[in-house]
Amino acid sequence: MTSPYQLENLRVVLVATRNPLNIGAVARAMSNFGAPHLRVVNPYEKAFREARSAVGAAPLLRQAEECPSVQDAVADCALVIGTTAIGNRDIKHPLRTPNLAGPLIRKRLRNDRVAILFGSEKKGLSNDDLSYCHWLLHIPTRTEHQSMNLGQAAAICLYELARGARSVAEGVKRSAAPMAVVERITESLLQCLLESDYVAEHSEKVAEEKLRRMLRRFSLDQSDATVLLGMLKKIQKQLAAKK
Amino acid sequence: MTSPYQLENLRVVLVATRNPLNIGAVARAMSNFGAPHLRVVNPYEKAFREARSAVGAAPLLRQAEECPSVQDAVADCALVIGTTAIGNRDIKHPLRTPNLAGPLIRKRLRNDRVAILFGSEKKGLSNDDLSYCHWLLHIPTRTEHQSMNLGQAAAICLYELARGARSVAEGVKRSAAPMAVVERITESLLQCLLESDYVAEHSEKVAEEKLRRMLRRFSLDQSDATVLLGMLKKIQKQLAAKK
Repeated sequence: MTSPYQLENLRVVLVATRNPLNIGAVARAMSNFGAPHLRVVNPYEKAFREARSAVGAAPLLRQAEECPSVQDAVADCALVIGTTAIGNRDIKHPLRTPNLAGPLIRKRLRNDRVAILFGSEKKGLSNDDLSYCHWLLHIPTRTEHQSMNLGQAAAICLYELARGARSVAEGVKRSAAPMAVVERITESLLQCLLESDYVAEHSEKVAEEKLRRMLRRFSLDQSDATVLLGMLKKIQKQLAAKK
Repeated sequence: MTSPYQLENLRVVLVATRNPLNIGAVARAMSNFGAPHLRVVNPYEKAFREARSAVGAAPLLRQAEECPSVQDAVADCALVIGTTAIGNRDIKHPLRTPNLAGPLIRKRLRNDRVAILFGSEKKGLSNDDLSYCHWLLHIPTRTEHQSMNLGQAAAICLYELARGARSVAEGVKRSAAPMAVVERITESLLQCLLESDYVAEHSEKVAEEKLRRMLRRFSLDQSDATVLLGMLKKIQKQLAAKK
């Protein structure tokens, strides 16, 4: 059976999280990016209860599993990744940034369960927690302010994991205006400028060249060019009528 | 002068943000990723005051600028990017995902100020807000749960911008037109179109939005913008004189 969630095989594990808002925020990002399975280890009881009533990800939080230890939380996973802000820590694990970690984790997720661990807001993951990890994930931040908010760090990791697993949203496709239209715009604008004495008749030739160069710098697309030409024609007509 | 912040030229603009925790969270992510300049437009007064006392990014919040309108908040920027969850919106702008937007924005940040706009938690950016934008940034999420938390969305955008960014601005200066000038062009062209009955008075507001979007697609540079404004002013004067 295929899951509607692209990160079906991921287990997000929150270890000793204190703030219910952070649990809620992580759950929301999980819901946004299609990672349905949350596990919490030793959460502050009240925080977990309050988070369950958080907006936006209630079903996901209701199904969250409470685990007695990190060991239990990762028992059925084939790859375990810890997250760290580094700080003053003496890192003994291989360390990867999210853009490098993303493809590696995605590849494993095809066949295996992968756990990604987030530590408490104050202390992060303990050395004992880290001992269950294959390698560590670190989001590069400014040296002067390394510590990220838990919900934001989780959102960035999930964003990287979800990336590429879906088609890229497409923008409005724009085709460039053909030069024939740009040329008509040039002519019409020149007429407007002559009518309004911006360009004197004796300098018409020089002005035309300048206009032509300028309008080509505007990188006009087809529909904008048509609209602009219509505007100029109307202005030109009005100017001429009132002469 | 080189700034210690790699995203020195970025202006993060929060429009009508309601929740102080979200303002604080955005500020914290900005501090994490080295974007020191926050602008707030029409925030809920209390939310902004409370956010100022938030942990982790107090200096950044103290220096945040309060702007009376989106127009003011982007006036000194050469590129303006809106963020959207899409939802039921009929998107008229080019739309880019953060991984595609990142390199484009970073390139512009070397020489120009760039604004990135985030709308209110409930409604996002209004059509009027969007009319000030060159293009839109969209974080791809699950169709069933598109709406992201503001602080998390901002963190992902900033993470993408900070990725691989260089700390020192380099390269040949090609200065794009500041939005204040583009706005004056918009106004002047609108007046011309009203005077010449291209735009009827009752549809002035809609026309203004369309013009604003169109002119932002022209990628005007500073000197072209000045010339164009001079032309329009002259035409406008002529049209008015003959009324």
